[in-house]
Amino acid sequence: MARTGRRPGDSGTRDAILDAARRAFAERGYDAATIRAVAEAAGVDPALVHHYFGSKEQLFVTTMELPVDPTELVARLLAGDREHIGERIAATFVSVWDQTANQHPFIALIRSAVSSEKAATMLREFLAHALFRRITDQLGMPDGHLRASLVASQLMGLAIARYIIRIEPLASAPPPVVVAAIGPTLQRYVTGDLGPAAGDHPPAGRAQTGS
Amino acid sequence: MARTGRRPGDSGTRDAILDAARRAFAERGYDAATIRAVAEAAGVDPALVHHYFGSKEQLFVTTMELPVDPTELVARLLAGDREHIGERIAATFVSVWDQTANQHPFIALIRSAVSSEKAATMLREFLAHALFRRITDQLGMPDGHLRASLVASQLMGLAIARYIIRIEPLASAPPPVVVAAIGPTLQRYVTGDLGPAAGDHPPAGRAQTGS
Repeated sequence: MARTGRRPGDSGTRDAILDAARRAFAERGYDAATIRAVAEAAGVDPALVHHYFGSKEQLFVTTMELPVDPTELVARLLAGDREHIGERIAATFVSVWDQTANQHPFIALIRSAVSSEKAATMLREFLAHALFRRITDQLGMPDGHLRASLVASQLMGLAIARYIIRIEPLASAPPPVVVAAIGPTLQRYVTGDLGPAAGDHPPAGRAQTGS
Repeated sequence: MARTGRRPGDSGTRDAILDAARRAFAERGYDAATIRAVAEAAGVDPALVHHYFGSKEQLFVTTMELPVDPTELVARLLAGDREHIGERIAATFVSVWDQTANQHPFIALIRSAVSSEKAATMLREFLAHALFRRITDQLGMPDGHLRASLVASQLMGLAIARYIIRIEPLASAPPPVVVAAIGPTLQRYVTGDLGPAAGDHPPAGRAQTGS
């Protein structure tokens, strides 16, 4: 215990904030969970949340135990030529997931998201706002939101087929085989032709149906 | 009650066989669940199982409440030109799933399969043996099993993104938009180039690693 320089009080406060943040993200979703609300639930000043975790995104990354910051991940995926971004996305996800397979918190979140509406909200908003929409937005492609949701569909399907349900030979295929198979799919979803019908559909989808 | 021509005894036996079949498929998986074992668990003669349900596959179809017989479905998907099979697969699944959305037993099975090893075994074997491998086998493509598992990965990802987690705009996109987006992916998985590495991988995958 004496080895760490952290005082017990610090660790308790930090854990209380993390607990409050996990609950807030799960109950309200990524967008609605504010630093202010997290701080209030944890009984601390918002400045202390910023002190420990920086931005809301960094707080989210910590609760998700993501191996990298999404901003950094998006920047890394966007670096390099546009013609190979699908391959880079596939290679990055397979290499991260292969390392920790079933134990990975992101795989755990997919598991939760199919049975819990709260986890589904969290995963949906994270994928949409923090990850794939940033990529399609920054590439300036039309139908960016549709593209982002298609990328999410193939990556979730890959996670389930390879790590959760384990359909062979995809479950045991070496990473280069998976990247060669999935990369071109993601490439087309991000930069390719989605067919004549795509542009006719409003990006916000069902949310606009009632208006 | 007097309206149906079925005697109560028949219905009781039929239900007992269906219950035993559901348990057998869930516990042993599609391959290992034999008509004989189902009959034994239901306390009836195997001939009676055949009498009520025909083949094991038809029994499975009844327990899954599939809208169509897999043999018929595979035949229908294989009819027509090879260049549009991806589009036909996408259109068929979207039209079946859109009708019943969340309530569909197949969506329910995907939900169960991510949390239950038994349901995962059932879904894995059904997808592999009854559905997509038949298509790739009958088309005589190399790497048929890898192709089948890739098709399964994109269709499960679509089911989760569109019906379970509901990522917009994919969740509300009109069927033609989804078919135009997903069809070419499935087409490439079934008949296209999967890259130089695919052929290097043995079709049986991990099952052969230990030998």
